[in-house]
Amino acid sequence: MWILRINMTDRSYALEEVPEKYQKLGGRGLTSTIISDEVDPMCHPLGPNNKLVFAPGIVTGTPAPTSARVSAGGKSPLTGGIKESNAGTGWAPAIAKLGLKAIIVEGKPEEAGKYWMAHITWDEDKPGVTFSPADDYVGKSLYETFPQVYEKFGKKVHVAGVGTAGEFGYGNAGIAYNDMKQKPSRYSGRGGLGSVMGSKGLKFIVVDPAGGPGMDYANEDLFKQGAKKLREALLEHAITKPKGGLNTYGTAILINILNEAGGLPTNNFRDGRFEGAAKIAGEAIFETNKKRMGKEIYNHGCSPGCIIQCSNTFYNEEGEEIVSCVEYESDWALGADCGIDDLDAIAKMVYLCNDYGLDTIETGVALAVAMDSGVIPFGDADGAIDLIHKMGQGEPLGRILGGGPAMVGEAYGNPRVPAVKRQGMPAYEPRAVKGIGVTYATSTMGADHTAGYTIAPEILSVGGSSDPLEMEEAKADLSQAFQKTTAFLDSTGHCLFIAFAILDIASGFEGMVEEVNGVLGTEWTGDEAVALGGEILKLERAFNEAAGLTSADDRLPEFMLHEQLPPHNVVNDIPDKVMDKVYETL
Amino acid sequence: MWILRINMTDRSYALEEVPEKYQKLGGRGLTSTIISDEVDPMCHPLGPNNKLVFAPGIVTGTPAPTSARVSAGGKSPLTGGIKESNAGTGWAPAIAKLGLKAIIVEGKPEEAGKYWMAHITWDEDKPGVTFSPADDYVGKSLYETFPQVYEKFGKKVHVAGVGTAGEFGYGNAGIAYNDMKQKPSRYSGRGGLGSVMGSKGLKFIVVDPAGGPGMDYANEDLFKQGAKKLREALLEHAITKPKGGLNTYGTAILINILNEAGGLPTNNFRDGRFEGAAKIAGEAIFETNKKRMGKEIYNHGCSPGCIIQCSNTFYNEEGEEIVSCVEYESDWALGADCGIDDLDAIAKMVYLCNDYGLDTIETGVALAVAMDSGVIPFGDADGAIDLIHKMGQGEPLGRILGGGPAMVGEAYGNPRVPAVKRQGMPAYEPRAVKGIGVTYATSTMGADHTAGYTIAPEILSVGGSSDPLEMEEAKADLSQAFQKTTAFLDSTGHCLFIAFAILDIASGFEGMVEEVNGVLGTEWTGDEAVALGGEILKLERAFNEAAGLTSADDRLPEFMLHEQLPPHNVVNDIPDKVMDKVYETL
Repeated sequence: MWILRINMTDRSYALEEVPEKYQKLGGRGLTSTIISDEVDPMCHPLGPNNKLVFAPGIVTGTPAPTSARVSAGGKSPLTGGIKESNAGTGWAPAIAKLGLKAIIVEGKPEEAGKYWMAHITWDEDKPGVTFSPADDYVGKSLYETFPQVYEKFGKKVHVAGVGTAGEFGYGNAGIAYNDMKQKPSRYSGRGGLGSVMGSKGLKFIVVDPAGGPGMDYANEDLFKQGAKKLREALLEHAITKPKGGLNTYGTAILINILNEAGGLPTNNFRDGRFEGAAKIAGEAIFETNKKRMGKEIYNHGCSPGCIIQCSNTFYNEEGEEIVSCVEYESDWALGADCGIDDLDAIAKMVYLCNDYGLDTIETGVALAVAMDSGVIPFGDADGAIDLIHKMGQGEPLGRILGGGPAMVGEAYGNPRVPAVKRQGMPAYEPRAVKGIGVTYATSTMGADHTAGYTIAPEILSVGGSSDPLEMEEAKADLSQAFQKTTAFLDSTGHCLFIAFAILDIASGFEGMVEEVNGVLGTEWTGDEAVALGGEILKLERAFNEAAGLTSADDRLPEFMLHEQLPPHNVVNDIPDKVMDKVYETL
Repeated sequence: MWILRINMTDRSYALEEVPEKYQKLGGRGLTSTIISDEVDPMCHPLGPNNKLVFAPGIVTGTPAPTSARVSAGGKSPLTGGIKESNAGTGWAPAIAKLGLKAIIVEGKPEEAGKYWMAHITWDEDKPGVTFSPADDYVGKSLYETFPQVYEKFGKKVHVAGVGTAGEFGYGNAGIAYNDMKQKPSRYSGRGGLGSVMGSKGLKFIVVDPAGGPGMDYANEDLFKQGAKKLREALLEHAITKPKGGLNTYGTAILINILNEAGGLPTNNFRDGRFEGAAKIAGEAIFETNKKRMGKEIYNHGCSPGCIIQCSNTFYNEEGEEIVSCVEYESDWALGADCGIDDLDAIAKMVYLCNDYGLDTIETGVALAVAMDSGVIPFGDADGAIDLIHKMGQGEPLGRILGGGPAMVGEAYGNPRVPAVKRQGMPAYEPRAVKGIGVTYATSTMGADHTAGYTIAPEILSVGGSSDPLEMEEAKADLSQAFQKTTAFLDSTGHCLFIAFAILDIASGFEGMVEEVNGVLGTEWTGDEAVALGGEILKLERAFNEAAGLTSADDRLPEFMLHEQLPPHNVVNDIPDKVMDKVYETL
């Protein structure tokens, strides 16, 4: 396998052997290690010295179930710290099958405003790259340009690209990847990595896996045994099985659950319950589709080889697709957090975010802060749609929103900014779900539910049980355990949603580790795997410290200390020492 | 003397005895100490837990020459650290003469968007405060409302107030004070303290000193001896004497000098020389006025009791005042840094900044970053005027600019942001004048020339001589010495410009210390005074550390490491360890 290094200063590339140090790494473990090794933590995120690293997971490209994920990494223009943001897409196994352990994009063109695309193919006995101008695609919609790219390079390729948000340099710009229908709907959304790609004048990375060598196995039998165990666990668990919770209702199944728990942030985190929750819940998506399409429609996979199949498509009254997919986080951010209870409007907004290259979470949280600042009223769906257009078109108000909720708060003098390390909080109220508050505050990524999903035991009774409302020092240990396990899981290439099954079914967890050992030839135990996750966190933390982040950045926003959240009328009562314990004891 | 505590949550106030600890403090020393003692460094700058402290200097209110300064302090919405910003104004001795050692404004009204004014008078045997609604003045120009406030409270009062910028919560919002003509032209400009005042619903603080007890002296003879020595030094030194450099050409005398040195930042710090420098220099202001008014016009004082008298008035072709005063920093920021060489346009922009309550430096640097990002071209004076109107009127593009140059850079994806701790750099190029680079990087205030004005020895051969272009470790010591001395000087209530005289004339420095000893009854030597300045810096530094600032924030922007500055083609070559030495050895 190789590391592919692309230099955008002069559009050159080099294939490098994978150094010993990187051979047992993949996904997040590899992107964070390369960033730690090669990027000056003090560099400007959009300057020539930042790098953008892509790495498929360790088992990505194999038949391991639900494992087609790629990590993107770099110094974040949003948080100022290290960033890893992963996505499920056929693009991920495509680069793995070309024998690429990672792609490192570095440098920056002298001339601003010029864009290129890189076409990666199998070139007789190794991968090769061809660069071509992409100026014709600049300033245009991704739903418009993705088909043009497929037209140009053929139907078998996979595409990663950035929209106008990434051209403008927004803190809220993701990297779009093709879904199963070759649409730009799968995202490394968080932390502005789309702007890192855009700053390098790189509009698309087109990957053609044809002819590639595919995956090697150190111990294929062990791999197969592990994949089988994991597959069985996924097929068994109520959340992940076919026609189970996720396959039926999608991730938005969580809307009603969090609303019931009083932990669904509503109207810019002014309430933990949303009156319109039932109207935007996963159940409503399923029922609306059923009514409009005249039949029950179960969800599909976002990427090849997925068993869980949680991606929905939402249809309009004419039976035409509005968008795929309305995820829980998008549904909440553009819905409940903005006081909007109209699924058609929410689906339209998701479409626009995908089209402009915006992160749906950051967009929704920024819109909600704007509403809280009086820019438009809560619940104004038409106004919100107009503001997303302003973002995608680079209008000044759109640029404020493009900077994320912290920039909106600064522009409007509003201290009610639900963000940590300038990254907007996802769909779980940290005052009502204490463990996720610890994760938001302490994650190396900024406020990020995926970094340590304590929601599993706190809300879903998966992987044990922990009272969401009770402040206890053990929340630090809980969050730390989830953060470590996640850092490893993000390195395997598996989707985080396998966690539901592997937390409850021990053989599933074993299977995941066996898959990895089968590919790498390692003999890691489960505990060792989790410990490796901890090592990744330490690297990330060290990068952040060198970039100037301190324990002062590991705090929830001040207003949550004083403002009581209905319906439980709770404040953030997590002591600083509990926050600090997560990394002090790592 | 008293501390006056104003609570804006319920518009109440209290007079408190001055605690022992504060009795020997004044100005910056007192504001920074109170902020350190009372404000949680983690609070939101615009939330209810920040405080705004005003303190006249130790000798303010006495006949000490050029000493009518007041410090404003708080946690800065711009830098996120502690802030002290002082101004020369009759408002300063007015509060001193009422026996007020400091005014602490705290709390925040429940209802957003409501504004009040506080009228401070002598109430038989002590100061008292009356609150009245100020909603009629909201959203209006300060040049319009200041006369209305004088109309309401009488011609003998002094006024501090915030413009629309402070209502909007901009990081770039100053506090305006009356000048000698009762106009809102004197400013605690830097660091957004106008927004702290605005966030508390406080629009004006009107001070009527009539009946106040005036100043006490522990040793009036010693005070008088000191004041005499200082007065003589000021009258003798070529820069500060009547019809000397500052009195004739104003602070803008520096334009030609810095241009000659290759250290006048031009076109957003792309060049160290400005082709149009001579057209905007202090000499040009003097000659233009002479031509337009038919006579030589020497400058006037910004505040009572000033000997230096460096404030100009700039007149239009009809002989009408455009604005008073066009300071060097404003002239440079709105002129050279924006590529604008039209004094009429620059004067108009200064007027608009005063009118809307904007800091001229932050405004100019933000405009220049916007020009560098393609928003309008360099040199476009009409475009720049239009953008300042957008700032003052709260339009989205204006709000981006109102957040200062760092927000502009983020909104437009431009890494060329000349700022430290998000505060825009003033009018000295740190690549061409190394010592000021050390001050910019390490000052507790963010990029601030007044915090440690090494320009004196580096450019003006005042107080010794140091090669501006030569990188040497001694620059750390030079900057530190200036920072300590300045922290003390900012506590006395004297204008920083007395530094020219007291650095060159030993008896002047002695005189300043004797004035202070005469007022306080202390027996400080000059060295002890400087050491006290160091203690103030330590307090400020500790606040910043607790607020999350680290040595990573003590750095010049990355682009200055790589981009050569003409005409000397120099980069920032100050090693990190030299930056770090300033506070490590404090």
